[in-house]
Amino acid sequence: MLRLHDYLRSGNGYKVRLLLHQLEIPFELVPVDIEKGESRTPEFLRRNPNGRIPVLELEDGTCLAESNAIQWYLAEGTPMLPEARLPRAQVLQWLFFEQYSHEPYIAVVRHWLHTGLTPERERQLPEKRERGEAALAVMERHFATRAFFVAERYSIADIALYAYTHVAHEGGFDLAAFPALRRWLARVRAEPHHVPITQG
Amino acid sequence: MLRLHDYLRSGNGYKVRLLLHQLEIPFELVPVDIEKGESRTPEFLRRNPNGRIPVLELEDGTCLAESNAIQWYLAEGTPMLPEARLPRAQVLQWLFFEQYSHEPYIAVVRHWLHTGLTPERERQLPEKRERGEAALAVMERHFATRAFFVAERYSIADIALYAYTHVAHEGGFDLAAFPALRRWLARVRAEPHHVPITQG
Repeated sequence: MLRLHDYLRSGNGYKVRLLLHQLEIPFELVPVDIEKGESRTPEFLRRNPNGRIPVLELEDGTCLAESNAIQWYLAEGTPMLPEARLPRAQVLQWLFFEQYSHEPYIAVVRHWLHTGLTPERERQLPEKRERGEAALAVMERHFATRAFFVAERYSIADIALYAYTHVAHEGGFDLAAFPALRRWLARVRAEPHHVPITQG
Repeated sequence: MLRLHDYLRSGNGYKVRLLLHQLEIPFELVPVDIEKGESRTPEFLRRNPNGRIPVLELEDGTCLAESNAIQWYLAEGTPMLPEARLPRAQVLQWLFFEQYSHEPYIAVVRHWLHTGLTPERERQLPEKRERGEAALAVMERHFATRAFFVAERYSIADIALYAYTHVAHEGGFDLAAFPALRRWLARVRAEPHHVPITQG
């Protein structure tokens, strides 16, 4: 059976859990408490030298890191990933947008508010918030004329961006100004076999 | 003919240029001076609402953003991207490592030293440098027993991480402590049809 080394509060882990549930693939959840340093132990670093969850451990012990790479691995050959060359590249475009222009702001501010604001974090907060808002604005503009990220169908690009957007308010982001984005969040929630971020 | 909207100093753009040269695919370079705000004009934002280079414009006018998504699109079906499911996911793992754990430190510090250190940048510099060093250490550990990132052959994962690692010294990063990484840089440079970052 697949083993997922993961932390329930993590939106990056949630991407993989939600996909596994929607593909109806059974898995064993191995909890890793990142707030207690459990992703930096020698044992964990053998699974991912970069010290981050989630990590998917295959049946032969091979470990795969990076939430969006794991998603791609699992979705290959399923309806969650288009088959044609251009839409596949467009899915990747949004996966990289998520990791570079969205997660470092939306997810990091949520994490900071959860674990506590230091003076240094306070100082960086306005810039983080501004860039997070910019990412949400890019999504709003996209959904003005579209139902999903790619090819007008639900895919791992939607899961990747749903993961931290649907809890953006926990980082103090107000989605009131993004009505098309909120309609997309509702569409994602309505997909079959949807589970909440708290579910292992 | 493919059109690449790009800025020559950019390592992200260089990934695509190097790959196009190595695949011997002709392209037209459309210069975008990001230091003069040319990636934030209304015209550019129609090509990429996220306001970043590089952007690959296909012959029908479709635009694809995110350097690593563009690389994937171009490499599909070539020797630069493995065919089997697991090594493909491992290539993606390194592409996401590059955008999340490497580029925001190695590339950003290089950019800061080029465009000038403000007091705020000075304050953030030690953390940026520490995280950049950590990324280089992850790579060093990998190359202690391997010649390339995935499946012991040159792929777009190597291009993605070569792009900013080979100019890391311009950000004040010293590679002396990473001998295996330096041997890998030399291997990448020795690949057929290699071109420098300054070449359009």
